[in-house]
Amino acid sequence: MASSILFQPIGLIHTPFAEPIGMPIQPSGAVGVKGTVEVFETYEKGLKDLDGFSHIILLYHFHCYHEYSLEVKPYLDNTSHGLFATRAPKRPNPIGLSIVQLDLVEGNILHISNVDVVDGTPLLDIKPYVPDFDYWENARCGWLEKKSKNVTSQKSDLRL
Amino acid sequence: MASSILFQPIGLIHTPFAEPIGMPIQPSGAVGVKGTVEVFETYEKGLKDLDGFSHIILLYHFHCYHEYSLEVKPYLDNTSHGLFATRAPKRPNPIGLSIVQLDLVEGNILHISNVDVVDGTPLLDIKPYVPDFDYWENARCGWLEKKSKNVTSQKSDLRL
Repeated sequence: MASSILFQPIGLIHTPFAEPIGMPIQPSGAVGVKGTVEVFETYEKGLKDLDGFSHIILLYHFHCYHEYSLEVKPYLDNTSHGLFATRAPKRPNPIGLSIVQLDLVEGNILHISNVDVVDGTPLLDIKPYVPDFDYWENARCGWLEKKSKNVTSQKSDLRL
Repeated sequence: MASSILFQPIGLIHTPFAEPIGMPIQPSGAVGVKGTVEVFETYEKGLKDLDGFSHIILLYHFHCYHEYSLEVKPYLDNTSHGLFATRAPKRPNPIGLSIVQLDLVEGNILHISNVDVVDGTPLLDIKPYVPDFDYWENARCGWLEKKSKNVTSQKSDLRL
């Protein structure tokens, strides 16, 4: 069995959401919501040329959430599903993933739009979003098939 | 400054690639390559309903890679770029992200296609891939704009 892995935040995500309650549950439910990513200065050199990308993938630590259940009733459904078939934040390894719009890079600060994370969230990684790598046409979406569009009206609470 | 975060693998990814040398560098460069995800039995219940999704997001530990540079010359270019503007595996927090095709779920084993990771890679998380959450049309791709399609002919070595 593989051993533990230790990560260190490389920055912090700043958003208008002081707590998870009432927060949008996906970037597509947070269109227009502005925030910033503060990349710690040690890592600033790694941001070179990021400004050529309109969208970036943020990986971060769901730091407000502890414990988890392997079956959850997600925000967008009344039926319970396996945790890994949902995007619920309470997970064995609570790593969040959001693809946000990159508006401007100013030194070590990234100005972003469509932010669905809590203020002060520890940043783990930034990757450029590349549809040729990250988009698969006609993907089948199981229980979310007819429900994923409701993401615009659904906000989070502390349930998940 | 935020403190360290400890993660524990929830499974292992099995692939035909014993080492990074000669491996495809993205799922889109690995179309048809088969592998399996062994989710440790403790977590099997969390896989319920995952079989409704044709594609899944795997987050994993780039365990073959240590150290990193903040500027790298990626496989797909002859110019160096900021690390965070690339998908290079050597990163401050070496978390890999691949969106692969889910062919079949058998108990705690996921049969997958389009695999671009090394055999024995520790799995950190599985999320359902949902274009309504994860796809942004007309995304601008900076230095990768004309180069991302070359991913089908490019293989990895130990450089990055």
